[in-house]
This record gives sequence, C-alpha cells and structure tokens, in this order.
Amino acid sequence: MRQPGDKMRLGAFLTATGQHIAAWRHPDVQADGGINLQEYIRIVKIAEAGKFDMMFLADNAGIWDRELESDGRSSRAGYFEPITLLSALSAVTEKIGLVATATTSFNEPYTIARKYASLDHLSGGRAGWNLVTSANAAEAYNYGLDVHLLHAERYNRAEEFADVVTGLWETWEDDALLFDKEGGRFFDPDKLKLLNHAGKYFKVRGPLNVPRTPQGRPVMVQAGSSEPGKELAARTAEVVFTAQPKLEDGIAFYADLKGRLARYGRTPCELKIMPGLSPVVGATREEAQAKFRELQDLIDPDVALGMLSSMAGHDLSGYPLDGPFPDLSDSDSGKGRLKVLTDTARRENMTIRELANHIAGTRGHNLVIGTPTEIADQMEEWFASEAADGFNIMPQALPGSLSDFVDLVIPELRKRGLFRDEYEGTTLRENLGLPWPELGGVRRAAKQDASLT
Amino acid sequence: MRQPGDKMRLGAFLTATGQHIAAWRHPDVQADGGINLQEYIRIVKIAEAGKFDMMFLADNAGIWDRELESDGRSSRAGYFEPITLLSALSAVTEKIGLVATATTSFNEPYTIARKYASLDHLSGGRAGWNLVTSANAAEAYNYGLDVHLLHAERYNRAEEFADVVTGLWETWEDDALLFDKEGGRFFDPDKLKLLNHAGKYFKVRGPLNVPRTPQGRPVMVQAGSSEPGKELAARTAEVVFTAQPKLEDGIAFYADLKGRLARYGRTPCELKIMPGLSPVVGATREEAQAKFRELQDLIDPDVALGMLSSMAGHDLSGYPLDGPFPDLSDSDSGKGRLKVLTDTARRENMTIRELANHIAGTRGHNLVIGTPTEIADQMEEWFASEAADGFNIMPQALPGSLSDFVDLVIPELRKRGLFRDEYEGTTLRENLGLPWPELGGVRRAAKQDASLT
Repeated sequence: MRQPGDKMRLGAFLTATGQHIAAWRHPDVQADGGINLQEYIRIVKIAEAGKFDMMFLADNAGIWDRELESDGRSSRAGYFEPITLLSALSAVTEKIGLVATATTSFNEPYTIARKYASLDHLSGGRAGWNLVTSANAAEAYNYGLDVHLLHAERYNRAEEFADVVTGLWETWEDDALLFDKEGGRFFDPDKLKLLNHAGKYFKVRGPLNVPRTPQGRPVMVQAGSSEPGKELAARTAEVVFTAQPKLEDGIAFYADLKGRLARYGRTPCELKIMPGLSPVVGATREEAQAKFRELQDLIDPDVALGMLSSMAGHDLSGYPLDGPFPDLSDSDSGKGRLKVLTDTARRENMTIRELANHIAGTRGHNLVIGTPTEIADQMEEWFASEAADGFNIMPQALPGSLSDFVDLVIPELRKRGLFRDEYEGTTLRENLGLPWPELGGVRRAAKQDASLT
Repeated sequence: MRQPGDKMRLGAFLTATGQHIAAWRHPDVQADGGINLQEYIRIVKIAEAGKFDMMFLADNAGIWDRELESDGRSSRAGYFEPITLLSALSAVTEKIGLVATATTSFNEPYTIARKYASLDHLSGGRAGWNLVTSANAAEAYNYGLDVHLLHAERYNRAEEFADVVTGLWETWEDDALLFDKEGGRFFDPDKLKLLNHAGKYFKVRGPLNVPRTPQGRPVMVQAGSSEPGKELAARTAEVVFTAQPKLEDGIAFYADLKGRLARYGRTPCELKIMPGLSPVVGATREEAQAKFRELQDLIDPDVALGMLSSMAGHDLSGYPLDGPFPDLSDSDSGKGRLKVLTDTARRENMTIRELANHIAGTRGHNLVIGTPTEIADQMEEWFASEAADGFNIMPQALPGSLSDFVDLVIPELRKRGLFRDEYEGTTLRENLGLPWPELGGVRRAAKQDASLT
C-alpha cells in the first residue's frame, strides 16, 4: 500500500505537563504548564527542531467528574483551550503542523469551519482538525443537556457536521481573491459559492467568511475506533490517531481501515494511520526503566483508579483493588477504549491496581521503555509491518521525555532512512504527503449548490 | 464623575486594511491585510508602541448580502476569525489589550467563556470580549435559521448569556491552583464551584475548564445603543464603544448611560465610554484634507450605497441617488444606527450619494480631519465635557493612518497630560483603570451554586 520512499510521520501529543498522570509532580516539570504559554512555546520549539509533522492537542469541553471528584489531586481540570493555544503558537513557529481537537456534538459547523480556516491562514497552511464526538457526559452538562447524547446519535451528527465543514471550506475557489486595486475587484464573484446545506441536523447557507486556505483546507484528523468511527474516518479523515498497544492488533486495524477507503473512492495513501506511542528513552534499558519508575512512584492511587474508571466507563471503586479487572458491559462512551483495557488486563493478567498504574502512564497507548535502538526497532517493525504510517508520540513528562525522543531516537530513525532530515514542504498537508484537496472531493452532503450569480 | 488625574483611554479599531471602505485600494495598503498575519503583527506593534490600551476587532459570523452582491468589489468577504487572530497576536505583544467581538446569538456561553478565558491566560491578562447580538440576518442563515432573531429576543438571550459567561469565569476562586507537588494537590477543591445555571435559554453545570484568569476575568465590552443595549451595558459592560458623531449627542449618551449604573449598584468609573473617532491627520489642514480626498476618490459608488443600505437596514437602490436621504422606518437590525444616519443627513442636508460617501470613510463614526492640534483639541473637548472617557480610534487606512495618529497626535495628547507615557500595569483591566472583579459581583443569573464538596 505504501509508496516507495515514504517516510514515517510523527506527531507530538502534547498534553500539558505530559501524558503521564503524575507528570506534573515531577521535579523537572512546570506544574502550571497547562496555562503557561512560554512553556508551551519552549515545548513546541523542541518538537519543531525535531521536525515533527505536527503537534496534537486533545480536548474536552468540560471538567470530567473524575477530576472534580479527585479532591484536587488531578491535574487536568483547567488548561488552555486548544484553538486559542495553537493560534498563539502559529505566530512563533514556522513549519510544524498544529492539530487541535474539537467536538461535533457541542459546536456549530460554521464556527468550526471558520476557526480552523483562520488557523490555517495564520499558520500558512499548518492547521488540522481532530474531529471527536465527545465521550464524556460532563460536556453535555455544559451544553444544555441532562444526559449525554447516544453514541449512534453523536456519529450521525458528526457525519453531517464533517460534510458541512468541508463544504464550507470549499465555498471559495483557490484563486477567488483578486486584490485588483486598479479595477476595484477584491474577489471574483464567480469563484465564491453558497453552500445551501439543509440536512437533519444543520441548515447552513454559507459561504464561509474565510477564503480558501493555504493548504486548500485544514487536515482532517480522527481517532474513533468504533464501527461508526472507522466508517466516518474512511470517508472523511486524512490522519487517524489510534490506541494500539499490540502489533497484531495494529496490523489488523490498519488493514481494516485502509480496506474501507475504496468504497469511498479513496486510495490508501490518502489516509495516514498513526498509533499512539509513549516512549521512555534511556542510554541503557536500566536507565529508561529508572526514569519510568520515578514517574510511577508519583502516582496517586485514587487518581489512577479514577482515570481507569473514567476510561472504562464504569465506576471501579467497588471492586477489590488487587482483584482481576472485571468483565464490564460496553458503555456508550468511547466504545473502543473498554476493549483495549480489557484486552490489556487479560493479556498481562493484571489486577485493577496494576492496570490503573499501567494506564496512568499510557492512557491505553503503547508504552515502550528502552534504548534508542530498542525504540527505533519497534517503530521500524510497526512501520514495515503496515501497522502504522507513523506515530503520535506521547511524551510521559514535558519537556524531558520529548527532548529525549528528539535527541536520542530521531537520530536513530534518520540513520535508518525512516525519518526526514528537513521538512519537505511548508504546509502540514505537504509534509504528511497528502494530496491537494480538489474542490468537490468531499462535498457529498451539500444538497444543492448555487452560484451567487 | 471622573477621578482626578484620570487619563484618556485609547482603543485601536483595526479592521483589516482600515476603516475606510476603499482603503484596500490605496497604494500603501496591503490589500490582503485581512488574512496576513505579518501585516497584523506590524500594525499591532505600532499601536503598542503608541501605548494604546487595546486593539479592537469587530466581527460577523457570515458574509453580509451587501458583500455577496457587490460583484466582487467589496473587501470584507473574508478575513481572520478574531479570537484566533488575537491569540496569535498575544504571543508577539506584551502590553496592549486584545478585544475581540463575539455574538451571543449564535454561540454557546460555555464556549465563549472558555475561549476568552484562554486568551486571557495566553496574553497574561489582556483579553476583552465585545458582546454583540448580531445585527445581520446573514449570520442567522449560517446557524440554522431562515429568518433573523428579533431584536428583543436577541437581547433577552444576551442578558442570560452574559450572566452565564461571567458566572463561569467565577467558578474558580483566585488562588484555587495549588501546584503542590509534594502533597499531590493540584488544586483546592473548596475553591472550584459548579455553576448549575438553569434559565430560559441555557442550562450549564460548569465549572469552566479554564482557571480564574490573570485579570480576574476578561474585560466586558459592548457597543449597543438601543434601550435594551444600554440597559445590558449598564448592568454588565466595563467599556462601551459607541458611534457619536456630535458632541451634544455624546454628552447626552454619556450622561444617560452613566446614570443607569447606580441601579445596578455600580459606580460611574466602573464603565468607560469610548466613542469611535476616525482621524485624518496632516501637518496642515490642507494636507489632511488631501489625504482624505485620496481615499474618497477610490470609493466605488455601488459599494458605498450597499454599505449605506446595509447600515440603514433598508435597500436604498430604488431612491434617487442625488435626492435627500428618506425617512425610513426603524428596522429590527442595529436600531441605533439608523438614527445616527438620519440625524447626520438632516444636520448636514446630505443627499443619499453624499451620505454614502460620508459613511464610506466613517461608518457613522466621528470623522476629524486636521492638524494634530486640531484633533487633540477636539479629543480634549469631548474628554473635558464628559462625552468620552477615551476614544476608539478608527484609522482610515492601515498602517498609515494609525502611524500618523501615533506619531503626530499622541505626542500632542501627552504634552497636554491627557495620555499615558507608559503602560500603568500589565493587564488590560489595570491599564483601563477598572477595578479587580470581586467574586459574585456579576453573578446575578446563577440560580443555584453548589460547592463540589
């Protein structure tokens, strides 16, 4: 499936303070990283010096109950809103892609289309939108609801939402702006179209009040692994971020998702699959293990159990902490996650405590502890086996774990010809090797289009 | 009413390319200014060097019909979304306030509270929110509606919206964040509260997932001049931007609005009134007039008539262009504006064409053409007469008209002791001389508050 010479793609998943639940307590970490712009600038510059394709920000439109109920022990209650943060970072970076998460469940498509198009202009073509449907009821409570939307309903809305957003991004043709001072023509009216979308969830006339963007349109990113999630990704996503802790599962997921593209008239290279990878790097394996132990020792057991409960979609505080992880019924939030947790617990024969401690550092993603060679070996194996087109690197504690990866692992990947020496282009789309989005390519939801003339 | 020693406040109203409708055609103006970050950085740095309190961005959530129907001759069809732009500018400025417009009619309060709180953290306490209710139906068409919301309905929603936003900004107490690495306490749970708002339009649990901001909360700005607009401002605004082309009207508006504050338990100094002022500065009056004529000569008559129609809320293309401005019935959009237009036309005995050309450079605001002394004289007169606590300066063409004001008028204001030499503080609130917002001061809509504990 892969093109000859294709390089590995790398994203930097930059949760404030780091991926590890106790990172904020580490002596080398700025505990206020989530609201500290200077610290984020320092971090994104490390990632850009390493030539990462993009930085990636997760998001929730509310404080999860596990945070509220943590007695102040959990660090993810307050932080920058991602689009504002990435807009700020766009002014102090030059090449790295800027991918922010936004939910389709509690936003309006015109607003989302506009903000990401604006970020794409601000950054010279480096914006990406990670579409999520909001797994947590805490968000619904902030947007007028007493109970969360059902999974199927969320995905129906997301399908239409994605089409309206991409449709709005295409209301301006590439060369619509004329800037003709002499003739008094600012834009060519024949190259600006209404959208006139009218669907089950949305009615949007358009056009967008932001012109066609430097990379045609922002890159579409998704992370769903449920059936509707994979189907939406196959139809509309250009990058998929996924939690695959095991190679065989990664290969199966990759083949499954890439195999769905043809039915939407797409080729496999139009979608890059990038599993999460949380590396702990040391000059020796012992040094790496010591680094990880240092973080693990800072875990608050209640916070870890709260996070596990939240990820599983079930309150686990009633189960014996040193007993096995129970068989739980599929909840309606984040369907893919419970399966990953259950598989991991069964495979490694973990107790609840052990699983809670395990996910405290990984949040269900692939944890690799070792030397640069060992980590590069595993990355190469996944890449060669077609389990991954690249990885979303999830540093455990910032900025140290990111610096370690940039200083130690990336040179090893380069030596093997797996990763770039320099950015190939100026836009995220160019660096990811994604095609220019032709107009009409994703405009399946627009029921009627009308020229203005 | 004013405190002794109070200085004049200055905002910079930085529409892309400038306030004048034909500015983009001027040879010294970057025609692509609306989507050119480097140009905006250059401009905001001029304003910051001049020690402006803030830069101010207007906004519409859609392309107005007058733009769409301009045959490509109008320049306001596409531009940066303001919150993303100001977030970018927050990373490259240090002192100047950053005020962006957002509508209460087509947003959700949790989203708005979050974005502006995030901008306040990004900028170290320099964010302001200009609350508008959307005067134009084009926005409604992008948000599910076939007809626009009625004026009264918009203001009812805005009243509740403002309370939810300020309530969310107060869900974190000032010192809620502990960052206690040793003890494992990230925040103090007793200092984080639910909002539990349930009203006619919104149901919002909270808390906000952004902590209390550097200036307590973003500065609340408004521009409505209808009765409901003035009442909302008297209750919730800290800065009011208003179009007052005539001194007597400015004095009356100032006395009217300040007089309404007491009934909400507020003192006059808690709200700063800043009329728009569009200066054209020259070393001599002739030079200033020549500068203005140069812009006026670039006006496209159809574009000017389209803007006048749009501001009046009535299509004027059926009236004789060289006949008098007709008596029009009050439309439902932007009630205050039609009165300003009618008053101006009657006072100056203007034809439709003359009024269209007049507002092409001012959009209904106070135009002053003259030497630095003449402009400072008028500003001083308005300030001393209590028609203004300061001005929102609307440069005709960017960056030239802004540089002229900074280089020529500001030194004259300083010489007279009317304007600062240096920023007094680091936050917008400090520079404007606004009090620190005590918790509970604006939390009138929260029907019930619940501690988390």
